[in-house]
Amino acid sequence: MLDLDKILNIIAIVGVIAFAISGALTAMDRKFDVLGVVIIGFTTAVGGGSLRDIIIPERDVFWIVEPIYTYMAILGSVLAVIFHNKIQHLRTTLSLFDTIGLGLYTIIGVQIGIQYDLPGISCVILGAITGTFGGVIRDILVNEVPLVFQKEIYISISLLGGSIYYLIYWYESHGAWVEILGISIIIILRLIVVKFEISFPTLYKNEKE
Amino acid sequence: MLDLDKILNIIAIVGVIAFAISGALTAMDRKFDVLGVVIIGFTTAVGGGSLRDIIIPERDVFWIVEPIYTYMAILGSVLAVIFHNKIQHLRTTLSLFDTIGLGLYTIIGVQIGIQYDLPGISCVILGAITGTFGGVIRDILVNEVPLVFQKEIYISISLLGGSIYYLIYWYESHGAWVEILGISIIIILRLIVVKFEISFPTLYKNEKE
Amino acid sequence: MLDLDKILNIIAIVGVIAFAISGALTAMDRKFDVLGVVIIGFTTAVGGGSLRDIIIPERDVFWIVEPIYTYMAILGSVLAVIFHNKIQHLRTTLSLFDTIGLGLYTIIGVQIGIQYDLPGISCVILGAITGTFGGVIRDILVNEVPLVFQKEIYISISLLGGSIYYLIYWYESHGAWVEILGISIIIILRLIVVKFEISFPTLYKNEKE
Repeated sequence: MLDLDKILNIIAIVGVIAFAISGALTAMDRKFDVLGVVIIGFTTAVGGGSLRDIIIPERDVFWIVEPIYTYMAILGSVLAVIFHNKIQHLRTTLSLFDTIGLGLYTIIGVQIGIQYDLPGISCVILGAITGTFGGVIRDILVNEVPLVFQKEIYISISLLGGSIYYLIYWYESHGAWVEILGISIIIILRLIVVKFEISFPTLYKNEKE
Repeated sequence: MLDLDKILNIIAIVGVIAFAISGALTAMDRKFDVLGVVIIGFTTAVGGGSLRDIIIPERDVFWIVEPIYTYMAILGSVLAVIFHNKIQHLRTTLSLFDTIGLGLYTIIGVQIGIQYDLPGISCVILGAITGTFGGVIRDILVNEVPLVFQKEIYISISLLGGSIYYLIYWYESHGAWVEILGISIIIILRLIVVKFEISFPTLYKNEKE
Repeated sequence: MLDLDKILNIIAIVGVIAFAISGALTAMDRKFDVLGVVIIGFTTAVGGGSLRDIIIPERDVFWIVEPIYTYMAILGSVLAVIFHNKIQHLRTTLSLFDTIGLGLYTIIGVQIGIQYDLPGISCVILGAITGTFGGVIRDILVNEVPLVFQKEIYISISLLGGSIYYLIYWYESHGAWVEILGISIIIILRLIVVKFEISFPTLYKNEKE
């Protein structure tokens, strides 16, 4: 039988590949050359988890000590390069990778915060950092205003999903199914938001172009 | 009676709120939506201290283990959102928050460097990082050339005030009044610079537009 | 006789000065004022090594505990400011500093990874981070797309040279001459690339302007 650690490891690896593909596609949109695409893919894939591990001083940065993550991030980027002509037509399908990565990484981040006995709000923020910071670094590196700050609904889903997961974890039950539930909540919320084009009410009346 | 640690804690909390307001106002100028405003406010408020704590490997990042700072950063940002219509007319008054934050954070940063027995120049740089790096991250996130590099007088006040504090601390005396003096020097220097529009002499003769 | 540690220390100090000059020149091109030039010079010089030391949790950030690096980074920047009129005509000569810095820092980064028993791919990536990340931060701070992502041949030389050094180190021999060899390989590769204007084949046919 699969134990929780094994499940979380598999989930983390799938998340790395998903985010690497998403980062590599962004870099190819900007016409970066092949190594640039791999670097942006790698950075998008490991950036959030790296910042999380840097913030918690007891933790080694995950990909430095477990090279499997580095290989998977490179693999995801290379796959995106090889199949980029076919992938271009699959954009909608591919934003799914981003959504899956968001769900996976958020829950892993909250989970690690819990492991280190951090306060609840810190766990939830660590989850959001793990889930969204790779994308922030990606946007800084390609010199754009990070997408999450323009469509913050993305990061708010991570915060909301992470909070729900944290509450279930403490007040209800532990175990793999709670992780799966948390990840599912985030993925479903994200799909609903995309489907119905939900966004925050603006603070600035009659001022928008 | 208030002891030194308590005073430094209160000072740090006031600084967090002041910087959060300053960051949130910048984000509202760029028409970020509400969560984006809170994130930029939070990042501005905790960014400098976070980089300082990351650089010193023995230290936990302060807001991760003491959630009061997270709550105060969110509170400052939310206050700025709620009162943003009124605050717009109070810009000059509000740049005071930035100035107070600069003084508070610089001295805290130098103080922490001293606590870890670091060399003098490292203490002074840690002070400047604590005092100004939140603003640097804020500007990177909204995709602008960091203000401190265009008006470096801001960061030089932090370096100068931090150096004076360091020298007084070692050669004269310890105690809460030295902190208060250091903070006051920085605030007064900043007000003088703003009042008399002091800036660095340019390196580039007859080349400016 | 010089031992290996002493040689690596001297190499690191030369690298800091070289990178500080290169960073300061970039900042003067953007018409930054004197303190801004020193800050960008300092950041370029210590940025790569700082990120490497932050990623390895056991390591103190090098310039915090050994102020000689801080002084040398400031010295390099100040030299660039003082001689900037003369240096402008020496651009080709000066890109040599960048090349030397790249070689020195890459090998130091790989060497430190080996010291901490990290996996081979992590050592090579740490080398590339040490060698190129200072330049990435520099470009982010002056708000441009990092050069290394447009001319990735620069970073690929670092990765290639670091890999060769790693292999020689494990399968052949240790000792100062291996470091010198690794550094020389990177410098020679870089000079060949610049001389013959080698670049990556583009991924995007018939689409370039």
